[in-house]
Amino acid sequence: MDVERIGEELPLLEGIRTTRAIRRLKPDPVPAELIRKVCEAGTYAPSGGNRQPWKFIAVTEPERREWVAVRYRRVFHDYIAPALEAAEAPDFPERKRRNMRAALHLADHLHEAPVHLFVAGWKRRGVEQVQGLFPAIQNVLLACRAVGLGASLTTLHTSFREELDPWLGLPPEIPTCALLPIGWPIGRYGTPPRAPVDEKLFWERYDPERDRR
Amino acid sequence: MDVERIGEELPLLEGIRTTRAIRRLKPDPVPAELIRKVCEAGTYAPSGGNRQPWKFIAVTEPERREWVAVRYRRVFHDYIAPALEAAEAPDFPERKRRNMRAALHLADHLHEAPVHLFVAGWKRRGVEQVQGLFPAIQNVLLACRAVGLGASLTTLHTSFREELDPWLGLPPEIPTCALLPIGWPIGRYGTPPRAPVDEKLFWERYDPERDRR
Repeated sequence: MDVERIGEELPLLEGIRTTRAIRRLKPDPVPAELIRKVCEAGTYAPSGGNRQPWKFIAVTEPERREWVAVRYRRVFHDYIAPALEAAEAPDFPERKRRNMRAALHLADHLHEAPVHLFVAGWKRRGVEQVQGLFPAIQNVLLACRAVGLGASLTTLHTSFREELDPWLGLPPEIPTCALLPIGWPIGRYGTPPRAPVDEKLFWERYDPERDRR
Repeated sequence: MDVERIGEELPLLEGIRTTRAIRRLKPDPVPAELIRKVCEAGTYAPSGGNRQPWKFIAVTEPERREWVAVRYRRVFHDYIAPALEAAEAPDFPERKRRNMRAALHLADHLHEAPVHLFVAGWKRRGVEQVQGLFPAIQNVLLACRAVGLGASLTTLHTSFREELDPWLGLPPEIPTCALLPIGWPIGRYGTPPRAPVDEKLFWERYDPERDRR
């Protein structure tokens, strides 16, 4: 695999339009150099004062992924189970039901995802600067799309962060803000379901009448 | 101008590596269709539960841009002036000095930037969900790069948000979170100065010894 050249052809706008959460992943390993490449894309994101607050921690050892997955699964089922049940009702929108099932699949198979990429950042004056991390996270998700990897973004791990962060070696001033399970996709890329831009874009001033929320 | 085709060739990873804040903008107008195109890229970002919390408000009328610019300039000079003075000291790093000067240029010429794109989102249980907006904002910045527009991200407008948001017609539950001044660039794109990925990426666990912060 020529890591330097992989993914360099995909056009930017096409990539943006076809990056969606991929939650069904093969257990096959991902070369470390490829993880390095997608994280490097993350480092090009903007940040206030160019402080580059991001730290990426890639967990790949099977027993460590198992450690994460056990806790993630527990939280997922505690929090999401009632919503899952509702999603199985016959009148529930089919697209949302598929999303719920994919999220359930991820929770039940997280230990198989070859890379658990945690993104951590720092606190400033005691306040988490999470907004500083999300442009970088978006760059990583787009770069995964470019090189053919599947990824999604979850923050559910924050429910067990008190145990997780010390286990990752992170001090309190650098909390984990996001977990990106990464691997080779089982499913396909595709345009995610979104409201048309004309519902989201306003000229000169916001119009609550026009806005269908 | 063929809006549908413009910017479709730029490769994603190259675009990510060469998107930097462009704060020197020509006063020439930008076609509305192009603003629509970069905002559409924003809508493809992920969001929790696919709630798509973003609203884009594009301010383009000259007297309205003047209204914004007067207030922005005042805040900028109040907050940033001492730092600007420090930046003119002979031992101040040249790269940072240039950044400071570009930020000053933007503040002093904001009324000339043809588009003031505000990104607003909603509060959930009283808490601003700003993290939900930044993947979309990053998509917009990358799309600007693709179509040849210059843009940067500032949150300094939040200092006068109490006056600004009602003026934009926004209710309290949809606060503005970012301002992207957009226009045709005077300067060039280029790789922004960033720490090497190997300083930011850790395997299995974070290592404070290795981390040079």
